[in-house]
Amino acid sequence: MRADILTAILEDLSGTSGDIEATGVISTDGLMMASILPAEMDEDAVGAMSAAMLSLGDRTSIELARGTLDQVLIRGDKGYVLMTYAGEEAVLTVLAKPNAKLGLIFLDVKRAAEKIADTL
Amino acid sequence: MRADILTAILEDLSGTSGDIEATGVISTDGLMMASILPAEMDEDAVGAMSAAMLSLGDRTSIELARGTLDQVLIRGDKGYVLMTYAGEEAVLTVLAKPNAKLGLIFLDVKRAAEKIADTL
Repeated sequence: MRADILTAILEDLSGTSGDIEATGVISTDGLMMASILPAEMDEDAVGAMSAAMLSLGDRTSIELARGTLDQVLIRGDKGYVLMTYAGEEAVLTVLAKPNAKLGLIFLDVKRAAEKIADTL
Repeated sequence: MRADILTAILEDLSGTSGDIEATGVISTDGLMMASILPAEMDEDAVGAMSAAMLSLGDRTSIELARGTLDQVLIRGDKGYVLMTYAGEEAVLTVLAKPNAKLGLIFLDVKRAAEKIADTL
């Protein structure tokens, strides 16, 4: 089952760092394909906001001559949202704590996104 | 003149790193207050895309329980866009090269954003 493989990749990713609070694989039209979310987190909201941010990020990257979009990072005072393309039709979204070590998360997320792209 | 002070802060920021290609201070409704842009860069596009990304970033940060938005970072294959609140009514937008040292840019941009917030 493809969803099981995706979930296993997300479990590996969550296991690499205690700073990761939630992970999801979302189609570029905003539908959740696999996720590991805390009970209080709304799956539909994660899907919808990820797809919307990537879509506006695509346009911003082109308008401001930054080439093809790879990632969007949001920093709030209660933590990070990192959205990364996993191939052309899916997005890996990761929610992390405010004190997260960003360098490690960038690295682990990049590797997970490559595995997801290979699976889809 | 306030615009002169803002321009001086942007000049200082651009001078800290050869990786910074363009800088601008934009009101949260998307109007440019001061900028140092390459000739081929469209000032209106920088203003409009910065305001749009921050607005959607605000909503994403709240929907996904990340608190009050501080920064949005976009990574494309030809470089970065970093948008940072400078107080509540202005945004500091920085365009950087693909190989930019992000840690240094985060630090310098944070300091410049604080100076801009004090000026406005």
